[in-house]
Amino acid sequence: MKYNPHSRILIYAEGEFGRGHSKTAEGMIRYGKNPIVAVVDSTREEKNVAEVLGIGAHIPFVRSISEALTLEPNALLIGVAPRGGGLPPAWRKDLLFALEHGMDIINGLHFMMEEDPEFAQAARRHNRIICDVRRSPDHLPVGAALAAGVPAQIVLTVGSDCVVGKKTTVIELERLANQQGRKAIYIPTGQTGIMIAGFGIAIDRVIGDFMSGAAEKLILENAPGHDLILVEGQGSLLHPGYSGVTLSLIHGSMPSHMILCHQPTRKYIRDSKILIPPLKEIAALYEAVTLPIKKAKVIGISLNCFDLTDEQALKEIEKIEALTGLPTTDCVKFGAQKLLDAINWAR
Amino acid sequence: MKYNPHSRILIYAEGEFGRGHSKTAEGMIRYGKNPIVAVVDSTREEKNVAEVLGIGAHIPFVRSISEALTLEPNALLIGVAPRGGGLPPAWRKDLLFALEHGMDIINGLHFMMEEDPEFAQAARRHNRIICDVRRSPDHLPVGAALAAGVPAQIVLTVGSDCVVGKKTTVIELERLANQQGRKAIYIPTGQTGIMIAGFGIAIDRVIGDFMSGAAEKLILENAPGHDLILVEGQGSLLHPGYSGVTLSLIHGSMPSHMILCHQPTRKYIRDSKILIPPLKEIAALYEAVTLPIKKAKVIGISLNCFDLTDEQALKEIEKIEALTGLPTTDCVKFGAQKLLDAINWAR
Repeated sequence: MKYNPHSRILIYAEGEFGRGHSKTAEGMIRYGKNPIVAVVDSTREEKNVAEVLGIGAHIPFVRSISEALTLEPNALLIGVAPRGGGLPPAWRKDLLFALEHGMDIINGLHFMMEEDPEFAQAARRHNRIICDVRRSPDHLPVGAALAAGVPAQIVLTVGSDCVVGKKTTVIELERLANQQGRKAIYIPTGQTGIMIAGFGIAIDRVIGDFMSGAAEKLILENAPGHDLILVEGQGSLLHPGYSGVTLSLIHGSMPSHMILCHQPTRKYIRDSKILIPPLKEIAALYEAVTLPIKKAKVIGISLNCFDLTDEQALKEIEKIEALTGLPTTDCVKFGAQKLLDAINWAR
Repeated sequence: MKYNPHSRILIYAEGEFGRGHSKTAEGMIRYGKNPIVAVVDSTREEKNVAEVLGIGAHIPFVRSISEALTLEPNALLIGVAPRGGGLPPAWRKDLLFALEHGMDIINGLHFMMEEDPEFAQAARRHNRIICDVRRSPDHLPVGAALAAGVPAQIVLTVGSDCVVGKKTTVIELERLANQQGRKAIYIPTGQTGIMIAGFGIAIDRVIGDFMSGAAEKLILENAPGHDLILVEGQGSLLHPGYSGVTLSLIHGSMPSHMILCHQPTRKYIRDSKILIPPLKEIAALYEAVTLPIKKAKVIGISLNCFDLTDEQALKEIEKIEALTGLPTTDCVKFGAQKLLDAINWAR
């Protein structure tokens, strides 16, 4: 999946911006390369995004797509992920309006807009592109451990659970590494990451037999010219729903090193009664499942302390460093230097 | 996926019967419930299946589908799995002929016949059913460890590699267990098993996010009325292409016990340079990945010694029992009683 990195994007987050289901919108604002002209959310009282997120003072809220037309967007990005990934019926009219008014659609839902006759026709008629970000490429290979032959250092983020900061960690690391002279690339493996980077494969949408092959393909295609490959992890070995995606990604991307991501205030695996084991045990489990031809070590811990004060976060970091003996930080609060140092040392 | 268990089946194995790619045909002949009228393979010199497999003296070879019409088949089962799972172009004419002459098609390829306009039309015109065995059901859930609440004993076969006898082991165990008064059920999770049992889901064909949910659904739907649930394993935690399917199946089916399957003469993971580690290490790895809410033990080893004499096989069994301390046998050569005893004791 590739889309135009120069498109002027209007983000659609009707009724949801900053309220827990607009991770995609927020990720795009924080890390995306495209210019963003506005965010559609008629329920927002604020004038601009900075009043909610602390960044994006130049991005106004608009009440409707129509109100944004004077800003000349040429792509509408769906920035909300409704539970289940389906298309809320109320959105249909708005999305058709966008296609009719010169916008491509960038869609990360499980719902494939291209397969919907009404959307497909409208796109053809108005000569617009529908980019279903989660659609997996045809003819993916079965994984064959080929990424083990890539000379670059390959670092994968893995998690104690899902939604703990695996994507954020690799993006922060990529920025910093490139600033400091490494030839680093971030490899996105989920819909939001794909929207941010403009390429990638949503591994969780791929048919079981071809998941690790999809990860392998991403590594082999993007390795040339880079000496540090930072792969976005998915799910968790401990999550009963997503663990297969996690393991496929490990065996497809063949990391040399892993960073373990964790939210210290979380006690149970999301939506379950599974108590999260101690981090040291989790790290050992991740190391145990790497294949004999390329064993990988967990070399650092990335904490997501968004729900703690800086002072509380520092205490957690200190505690976890003492328990695990591994360099630990919160990349958003305190930067990724400590983890990048660990990566450079392990090289 | 369900199909008529009374259909009179003609097996299509043109050019391949008994030559390494006709596992589906052989599995169906060995374990299927449907009457089988003949096997199509024009290259076979023998008169009947028994001359190749040692069983099936009543199943003749025929040179063409047309030659089998007097035997009144009402379903054609594709018994060959070509590399890649696509449809060999030369088969098209034969499959259309079968539909035109009153046969449903039972298809386990990755190629979905129902989505092919020519086959779909022919099926409609002749009022026949195309059963794409690998098609996954719509609206599968995300796995949520719900099978952990099932009161029956759940036994899953796991492997040192793929194609080592995971399906055969559970089928042999199911027969024996039911003969001896347990209420056992075999849960198929791959295309051949589905053809044999007449129900199931091909987990390897399911989209990543829903694989373990598919396994969970199979357990929850089939648990009532049974006290021993025997789940067919897939792939291997050590296979770089299929490990994600394997782990999803473990976390979806939530076994209480596992039987480790292995081919003693195999040194490397199929199509790879990955050396197979000692069985004790493999068993420990499988136990380590089971989730904290329902830890499972490996309680026996099932060897596939098809390429050894009985005497050689007995030596391997003895050696592996000494090394692992686990009851070990070859279920095809020596029956499954030893493993069933282990399952009953572990109950």
